Amino acid sequence: MERIPILKMGRFLLVTIQVDLYDRLALTLEEDLVQMVYDTGASGVLIDISALSIVDSFMGRIIGNIAGMSSIMDAETVVVGMQPAVAITLIELGLPLAGVHTALNVERGMALLESRMSARPDDTSDADDD
Amino acid sequence: MERIPILKMGRFLLVTIQVDLYDRLALTLEEDLVQMVYDTGASGVLIDISALSIVDSFMGRIIGNIAGMSSIMDAETVVVGMQPAVAITLIELGLPLAGVHTALNVERGMALLESRMSARPDDTSDADDD
Repeated sequence: MERIPILKMGRFLLVTIQVDLYDRLALTLEEDLVQMVYDTGASGVLIDISALSIVDSFMGRIIGNIAGMSSIMDAETVVVGMQPAVAITLIELGLPLAGVHTALNVERGMALLESRMSARPDDTSDADDD
Repeated sequence: MERIPILKMGRFLLVTIQVDLYDRLALTLEEDLVQMVYDTGASGVLIDISALSIVDSFMGRIIGNIAGMSSIMDAETVVVGMQPAVAITLIELGLPLAGVHTALNVERGMALLESRMSARPDDTSDADDD
């Protein structure tokens, strides 16, 4: 496995993490994602982690990194599908994912992004949205 | 990795295959998918294989199986993101994926499903969906 696919869905990008991120794969994902936000002008990034039953501090940090990078590229990040055990671990590790929105599943994550987009004072991504 | 996540997006289901399907994982995916079509009343299934750089005859057969199962559950299947080398291999293996629609990426796949849904004479999925 060389890279994790990033799917463009309308104004958002969707990443499904199904495998443990080792160092190089994580870096490639970060690079690909930031580049894709730049190329597509996406206004939101959904990271689905429903396949992950455990996370470690590395994984938590990577998710935080991605959210931070997306944020300064003007795209919001929503982590979706977090399993209960993962939420417990993240808090116990002291990684509360500051600045990252979460939602129960992809549909709710998309609804969250949509509502945040429409609440923006200046929406440049969609001229006919008002 | 125990199972491949299936994401519900509106009326469609999205499966991103990122790892080689071994026997049990493939069977679990088939079961999960058919069950989820039943539970959600989804009218379309998108299978993203953009992460696969090679396929073998087993993989080709599984994709064909999933499409066949979805079809008799009244959901259409679109395989999206196929890499050129994969297309070459499938034909050379004699697996032309009969009955499976294909599209270049998820967005086009969704557009294809939308257009096919709207072309249906009797669309029952909308009645209880909103």
